[in-house]
Amino acid sequence: MKAFIIGGSGRVASDLIKDLVAAGHTVTAAARHEDNIVDLPEVTKKHLDLHTSVDDLAELIKGHDVVYFTAGSRGKDLLQTDAFGAVKTMEAAEKVGIKRYIMLSSIFSLQPEKWNLPGLKEIMDYDIAKFFADNYLINQTKLDYTILQPTVLTEEKGTGKISVDILKPSTNPIPDVAQTLADLLKFDNTIGKVIMMESGDTPIDQALSEIK
Amino acid sequence: MKAFIIGGSGRVASDLIKDLVAAGHTVTAAARHEDNIVDLPEVTKKHLDLHTSVDDLAELIKGHDVVYFTAGSRGKDLLQTDAFGAVKTMEAAEKVGIKRYIMLSSIFSLQPEKWNLPGLKEIMDYDIAKFFADNYLINQTKLDYTILQPTVLTEEKGTGKISVDILKPSTNPIPDVAQTLADLLKFDNTIGKVIMMESGDTPIDQALSEIK
Repeated sequence: MKAFIIGGSGRVASDLIKDLVAAGHTVTAAARHEDNIVDLPEVTKKHLDLHTSVDDLAELIKGHDVVYFTAGSRGKDLLQTDAFGAVKTMEAAEKVGIKRYIMLSSIFSLQPEKWNLPGLKEIMDYDIAKFFADNYLINQTKLDYTILQPTVLTEEKGTGKISVDILKPSTNPIPDVAQTLADLLKFDNTIGKVIMMESGDTPIDQALSEIK
Repeated sequence: MKAFIIGGSGRVASDLIKDLVAAGHTVTAAARHEDNIVDLPEVTKKHLDLHTSVDDLAELIKGHDVVYFTAGSRGKDLLQTDAFGAVKTMEAAEKVGIKRYIMLSSIFSLQPEKWNLPGLKEIMDYDIAKFFADNYLINQTKLDYTILQPTVLTEEKGTGKISVDILKPSTNPIPDVAQTLADLLKFDNTIGKVIMMESGDTPIDQALSEIK
């Protein structure tokens, strides 16, 4: 497949790009600082500022089969980047007929009643931005979406094993989040699903194949 | 009717409260600084912080017939107040069976393609917050909503005349916006409508009665 990665210079995106290339996909990765995108002969780098228009975004992503949204402003531009920037990429995907859209979200983004849990209260603005983006994706697009909601990202080594049964915020090594994002393309049963994840005991492909 | 005003200490709300009382309605007004709510024997003042829970909001508003949302953080807390604070009041209204919900919004909040017009570019974060709140009200509630979208608010004297045919941002005296909000209760044809307004030549009641 031809995958387009929005937020292509981020920590998760860097691993995701490698995983997608390893699985035989063609990747275009776009970021505000495109020089920071991982260097691989199979990867096309593009400049992308999420303050641009839906039309410009549509032009950039057309011809791809799947859009990954992994961009984030780290709290600095939540409304225009994390929330509405995401909405514009959804509208762009619909405009050029891309059906598959995979959103890297955050644990409990759609469950406000949990935002007072330890570790989440401090990032409430971020959770609200993700709430509105995820909510829009589910309710106001016809995209074949999957929303992946990891808990706290860590720089640890990946284990290749996860759990999708989450009760409270815990941690995920970044390589496992990236591998899970990449592997979603193998499992059409994940379309239309919101999937929470943390480190666990189940191999990623097995966990994804069992999503109902 | 029994009206509940969220953001009851604001400039528009102060006039709105007087207009509702003058029309014979009972008013409860709530604000973070409830002492700043206009003093009238017919008005009950309540303390309200929009960082509270849906359950607390539901408790506060139950027994009323209509909720007005006129709160705003003036750019200081857009995600938790203007955007998600509004969503919580909608959920609270649905929870306690209040059907009528009137949102004071902002011109073109639902038309992102106009956010680059002069006078709007500077308030894009605000427009995005209102976009998400308005959008949620329309698409994810079953409330009998009206969304009123004035242009720039001014401290001028009201004229009692408006136009609901807007092509670009202009101005509205605050008293006219407040009177329009109050008069919406007379016109059930405004339910399910997004109404833009600016100063104009049509008496408010006539303009509202002609909304289709």
